Amino acid sequence: MGLKPSGIITLTTDFGLEDPYVAVMKGVILSIHPGANPIDVTHCVKAGAVAQASALIQEACAHFSKGTVHVGVVDPGVGSERRPILVETTHHFFVGPDNGLFWPIIKGSHRAKVIHLTEREYFLKAVSHTFHGRDIFAPVAAYLSRGEAPLMMGSLVSNPVRLDLPVAKAHRGLLRGHVLRVDHFGNLITNIRRGEIHRYLGSAEAITEIGNLVVEGVHETYAEAKPGEALALIGSSGCLEIAVNLGRACERVGSVSGDLFGMSVAVKKKWG
Amino acid sequence: MGLKPSGIITLTTDFGLEDPYVAVMKGVILSIHPGANPIDVTHCVKAGAVAQASALIQEACAHFSKGTVHVGVVDPGVGSERRPILVETTHHFFVGPDNGLFWPIIKGSHRAKVIHLTEREYFLKAVSHTFHGRDIFAPVAAYLSRGEAPLMMGSLVSNPVRLDLPVAKAHRGLLRGHVLRVDHFGNLITNIRRGEIHRYLGSAEAITEIGNLVVEGVHETYAEAKPGEALALIGSSGCLEIAVNLGRACERVGSVSGDLFGMSVAVKKKWG
Amino acid sequence: MGLKPSGIITLTTDFGLEDPYVAVMKGVILSIHPGANPIDVTHCVKAGAVAQASALIQEACAHFSKGTVHVGVVDPGVGSERRPILVETTHHFFVGPDNGLFWPIIKGSHRAKVIHLTEREYFLKAVSHTFHGRDIFAPVAAYLSRGEAPLMMGSLVSNPVRLDLPVAKAHRGLLRGHVLRVDHFGNLITNIRRGEIHRYLGSAEAITEIGNLVVEGVHETYAEAKPGEALALIGSSGCLEIAVNLGRACERVGSVSGDLFGMSVAVKKKWG
Repeated sequence: MGLKPSGIITLTTDFGLEDPYVAVMKGVILSIHPGANPIDVTHCVKAGAVAQASALIQEACAHFSKGTVHVGVVDPGVGSERRPILVETTHHFFVGPDNGLFWPIIKGSHRAKVIHLTEREYFLKAVSHTFHGRDIFAPVAAYLSRGEAPLMMGSLVSNPVRLDLPVAKAHRGLLRGHVLRVDHFGNLITNIRRGEIHRYLGSAEAITEIGNLVVEGVHETYAEAKPGEALALIGSSGCLEIAVNLGRACERVGSVSGDLFGMSVAVKKKWG
Repeated sequence: MGLKPSGIITLTTDFGLEDPYVAVMKGVILSIHPGANPIDVTHCVKAGAVAQASALIQEACAHFSKGTVHVGVVDPGVGSERRPILVETTHHFFVGPDNGLFWPIIKGSHRAKVIHLTEREYFLKAVSHTFHGRDIFAPVAAYLSRGEAPLMMGSLVSNPVRLDLPVAKAHRGLLRGHVLRVDHFGNLITNIRRGEIHRYLGSAEAITEIGNLVVEGVHETYAEAKPGEALALIGSSGCLEIAVNLGRACERVGSVSGDLFGMSVAVKKKWG
Repeated sequence: MGLKPSGIITLTTDFGLEDPYVAVMKGVILSIHPGANPIDVTHCVKAGAVAQASALIQEACAHFSKGTVHVGVVDPGVGSERRPILVETTHHFFVGPDNGLFWPIIKGSHRAKVIHLTEREYFLKAVSHTFHGRDIFAPVAAYLSRGEAPLMMGSLVSNPVRLDLPVAKAHRGLLRGHVLRVDHFGNLITNIRRGEIHRYLGSAEAITEIGNLVVEGVHETYAEAKPGEALALIGSSGCLEIAVNLGRACERVGSVSGDLFGMSVAVKKKWG
């Protein structure tokens, strides 16, 4: 028995907001399934930034109803040999390019089916070489949300492209992780999960170092620091976050490049 | 008899457009009430700018159907002692932090009920300290839009936090007001209402002064000034607006700081 | 027999994303027709840029169901004598100012009816001089999407305002066109259609010149150029596009002004 669709289709792309591309995808979706409910995750992914989009989709999808279709179009290889795929987990469908975008989803779900989309009757009649979001992913998502069976749309594959996002690791007495995302407030969101911190720290206090910043303790709310002061806390995604109360942590770490994705973070134990 | 919900839920936040936070709120809403219709007001409120968001919500809400739920999340005190609240007026519901955001709504509606949200069965199971938009406000809005009674969700309070937005006043022969908003076109939207101007002016002509700008008359349309010329007019919100025909008034007032919120505007009478 | 509405209403404006104006239009629409489905095309059109908006609406509308209402509000003449209009083609409705915005639609559809909106019962009660998007276009779109007959709302006119977008032309051995749009990825999208290129080139190879750039051939996908290399290809809209694989073509043409709209592009034949 397949997953029953919720009718919701989320969209995550690097298309920006000034072009008609997102609306065109919604037009295609609603032409095939007038009852579908398209919901934007974001269209402000940095152009071609597959790893960032991957983390965003993973964070967003958990809060949607069972049977939601998540479309991701960050697709620098569009028109090349990369495959269009559909992923079905126990809770959700994912549709997009086979470029690693859904690898964390596939890896994290022990029963994920990955289907290479080959059946052209589920695509628009003319498939361009430059806009598979419109020509393949939007129509496939619309058919899925209408209840079409994934296996009608292509055949199972066992070798999806992998994308190994950095993983937090305890090593030589440190817990080392990385910045996954700098959010709109300038908070640095890392890949160090709550459980990993607790396991590593035991009863010790934490000292967190990132670039120029050194902060003590792991807090619960921004207001535990004075206005303008930096702190580490477990953020809303359950991961360690470096923030500045009423300020922007991203401007404090002393990075000269704008892109903090992947920047190293170290948690140490503070003894007595 | 309570207010019958319209199913529409508007969202006003300072979350920006690059993060998954807004989509996560919509996912939570649609999981609880699949028939809800979430509508974005804006997510581009300046971080933590409660007064600006307050003015935006007030301007937007008037145009929505009776029974619409308006969620506002500009919440620099999230996780501290500030209360989560629900406001019910004769026309609408409002859900968000008790930090003044809804004070103009409460003050302007002589029968507003303010409810401190305490009943955790209407929240997500785990309530974080940093994202009440997801954990409290989105689920409460969804339950409201499904028809749950506000009084089931908490208890009435009589002391909501006040936020006194500047008010226009006639004083020493001047009518003095303030800039409430600089819109996308660079127009300066003030808190001086049409009726206040007419009452103050009587049969006199107006001279409006703001920063470096002095303009004569109160016009009806932008095209009454020559291209590039400044003018004062009653804008679409019914308030005095300073604009430049086909230009940007915000660049003409000679302010060095970017933030014109609260800037003083004076209307005088011009005598023959 | 009129066109049966799909319930979808698309919105294209220059309102930006920080003000409540777009939400106010949606509030008006849903108050009149709660079952309407408003879909944003973009609100990031450059202020007053009628020609750009016109090209965007034309590109987006083709992908929406028959009977969709497309609202366009790029309206620098709001409040002046310019007429509010409704256009009905064999597939769609268009609602907005008579300032040329819909001229390419009218010209391209041999049976388009243009109706001057005069019947005030389809407008909001008070019509401002500065926000017809809210007071005229949103309510008219909502009534149309509910099934009201266009001819009830005004009377046919035969002289809509024209807007002649630049047209590609073969002349003196060259095929000369213009940049219609610079998209989010920095791609330069021209008005030279696939068929025009093929007709002009015959069996010859193409050399495309734009500003400082000279590229050979007409490709199918971005990946046919090396990373960082410029190329010409037929883009997803069926028009010639100048792009840089994994880069931004708009930064390569050597224009000092930021606005590349209307920039000249020449295609030549390369012989042997």
